[in-house]
Amino acid sequence: MSTFHVVIGGGGFGGLTAAKTLGKEIQKRKLSCKLTLIDKENHHLFQPLLYQVATAGLAATDIAVPIRSILSRIPEVEVRMDTIERVDLEKKMLFCSKGILPYDFLILSLGMRVNYFGHEEWSSFCLGLKTLGDGRSIRNVILNAFEQAEIETNPKEREKYMTFVIVGGGPTGVELAGALAELSKKALKKDFRNIDPANTRIILLEAAPRILLSYNERLSALARSRLETMGVEIMVSKPVEKIEKGKIFYKGGMIEASTILWAAGVRAVDLPGLDVPKAKDGRIKVLADLTIPGHPEVFVIGDMAMVPGVPAVAPAAIQMGRYAAYEISRRVACLVGKSTGRDCLKPGAFHYFDKGMMTTLGRGKAIVQFRNFGFNGYLAWIVWLLVHIITLISFRNRLAVLIQWAWAYFRFKPGARLLSK
Amino acid sequence: MSTFHVVIGGGGFGGLTAAKTLGKEIQKRKLSCKLTLIDKENHHLFQPLLYQVATAGLAATDIAVPIRSILSRIPEVEVRMDTIERVDLEKKMLFCSKGILPYDFLILSLGMRVNYFGHEEWSSFCLGLKTLGDGRSIRNVILNAFEQAEIETNPKEREKYMTFVIVGGGPTGVELAGALAELSKKALKKDFRNIDPANTRIILLEAAPRILLSYNERLSALARSRLETMGVEIMVSKPVEKIEKGKIFYKGGMIEASTILWAAGVRAVDLPGLDVPKAKDGRIKVLADLTIPGHPEVFVIGDMAMVPGVPAVAPAAIQMGRYAAYEISRRVACLVGKSTGRDCLKPGAFHYFDKGMMTTLGRGKAIVQFRNFGFNGYLAWIVWLLVHIITLISFRNRLAVLIQWAWAYFRFKPGARLLSK
Repeated sequence: MSTFHVVIGGGGFGGLTAAKTLGKEIQKRKLSCKLTLIDKENHHLFQPLLYQVATAGLAATDIAVPIRSILSRIPEVEVRMDTIERVDLEKKMLFCSKGILPYDFLILSLGMRVNYFGHEEWSSFCLGLKTLGDGRSIRNVILNAFEQAEIETNPKEREKYMTFVIVGGGPTGVELAGALAELSKKALKKDFRNIDPANTRIILLEAAPRILLSYNERLSALARSRLETMGVEIMVSKPVEKIEKGKIFYKGGMIEASTILWAAGVRAVDLPGLDVPKAKDGRIKVLADLTIPGHPEVFVIGDMAMVPGVPAVAPAAIQMGRYAAYEISRRVACLVGKSTGRDCLKPGAFHYFDKGMMTTLGRGKAIVQFRNFGFNGYLAWIVWLLVHIITLISFRNRLAVLIQWAWAYFRFKPGARLLSK
Repeated sequence: MSTFHVVIGGGGFGGLTAAKTLGKEIQKRKLSCKLTLIDKENHHLFQPLLYQVATAGLAATDIAVPIRSILSRIPEVEVRMDTIERVDLEKKMLFCSKGILPYDFLILSLGMRVNYFGHEEWSSFCLGLKTLGDGRSIRNVILNAFEQAEIETNPKEREKYMTFVIVGGGPTGVELAGALAELSKKALKKDFRNIDPANTRIILLEAAPRILLSYNERLSALARSRLETMGVEIMVSKPVEKIEKGKIFYKGGMIEASTILWAAGVRAVDLPGLDVPKAKDGRIKVLADLTIPGHPEVFVIGDMAMVPGVPAVAPAAIQMGRYAAYEISRRVACLVGKSTGRDCLKPGAFHYFDKGMMTTLGRGKAIVQFRNFGFNGYLAWIVWLLVHIITLISFRNRLAVLIQWAWAYFRFKPGARLLSK
């Protein structure tokens, strides 16, 4: 009996779920399969809370866990820290910077990266938030701005240090703005002598006529008024035209700010050799079973896959990872004759179960939209908190996160305020 | 009544204790004093546990706390994140990279830095451990070595990745070696498929005839045999002659190792303008009251001060910080006439209260030497743990550290195993 080699690219929600599920299925069905999971980082990142690392609410270790330690109990899985450079779909080989991996089945779950829409030159003046490194960089920039403002004697320069512009009013921009408002207006309140962090200007710049376009108009308006109460200035219908160091030009105006953050766009990671139909944002137009045309052995899942009606959120990636793993184990079982009959006829289209979406606006405030039903306020925040703690359950540090949050909640003192290299 | 300006350079144990004590004294004696604490970092670092960040046992945020948040409740203290470049003792001015600070009293507590004894070129192949950044860099190097070994197919190269040399058998070297042994032989046990981390070679290289020279011979020998049981190879009387990338030459031999760590020496930070008698390791030879000759307004404390019989440890820095703060507040009170009589005649020499010293050798093992009395084993480790938790008490994250430790202790799974930039 030959051994099937399944290669998984990416250790995010999709790839990790696929590895775990496939590990279990292999054991259950007693299949001869070898799994390799490749990621360029050694850790899985709990992206939904990355904005908290950027705003000094959580430590990096609270939301990142070594992939090896998550998968250490599945002996069939080998974790490889390596960079995927190219795929050869015909030869069924993945070219990495430290070696070539042949595969029988391939699951690609490489996620998305920050997109400046053709203005890559903006990236040096306007940090995006996607990796743990980004989170740390943004935190350093934010904390450093307050340190500089405290020392600065020129009032005009000081004002620049205390002005923060966030480009993009989607969930990431909104969560960043809310957390930044809490950091400056509450947590840092007593820390400075020459400046009052409560005077910080936080501006959320959105090109569309309203923020949180993916939510209904009522929740979007609620979020807006909530953020405004917290001191965030919201400017809609203001597409960005140019960004320079410390200056941002939008339609009809300009703001001087030492900190400009980019939460306005992402696009799927490009993998050379993956020459298949793609959407405008680089996502792969997969078939109903999440494979690519002509290659039933190649699955694309998570944010990288474009499936009509399925948003780029963690629950979707998790469901796709589980689906791809089941599909592969089912097909392998049929190929080796361990499974026969009806199981081997199953057409197997992927179905998304919509778990809704939620965005937090700060301490005790959130909005939740579940299909046609939406709610907000403290209850929404409790739901948000529970969902995130439950999802973090596979992480060893859920307890640390909980304590950190409880502490921050009662003391208004985000603890991870470290400036470091 | 004129306002006295006290400037404190350095936010380590000495500087921070001085700021806290002086803040209290100012309030108690109702003095008109302004304090400025300057540090180039925004955080105080709990140095005694830095080796645990380097070996992935603790997260950076567990042992570092923003100086501002520690001092936020003392309104007389202004914290300034800035780099001290030069002192002018005659003009009583401190020159920083972002401004000039005049002072009436100055407390210098700038600590020590890694010293390669004239071989600064070794620093790129052989990381030292002094700052939080160093701790993170060493952790990245160590974790990366295992990742490379896992991928490497050439057995000779793989062996190099799995060989770790620590130069210097003092407390830092010993603690690093012990923690590295636990990391590789226990925590990483099930994480890899192509290598067995238990085969890691950890070599502790010492120039003197025995390790832990500051301890008595019995405890030093006990520590040695304990480390050897844990799998650490100890080589004494082997002064280092040359270090190249991946190669270390010592008297009589050479070892190839991708990771070489430097724990063999430190020297006091040099401050231009501080032209006073210094010891060989750069420490300032202070007078009995911790001031420098001819300048009763300038105190040098902590590791930076050379006081016969006082070791460069945290308790000494804390005691010196408290002493300098009392002295300054006493003198100011006498100068402004708030205090008179005997209090203003007090000669005030600094007296060190020896609290002993302790070094941990790993899980449940430590050595403690208190004056002529020494003990070891589990009890010593409990003492070590309690002392460190009590000292950490002013830190907001003592609970997080405790949980992290408890978790690591029961699970053998150091949690902070993040490779990151």
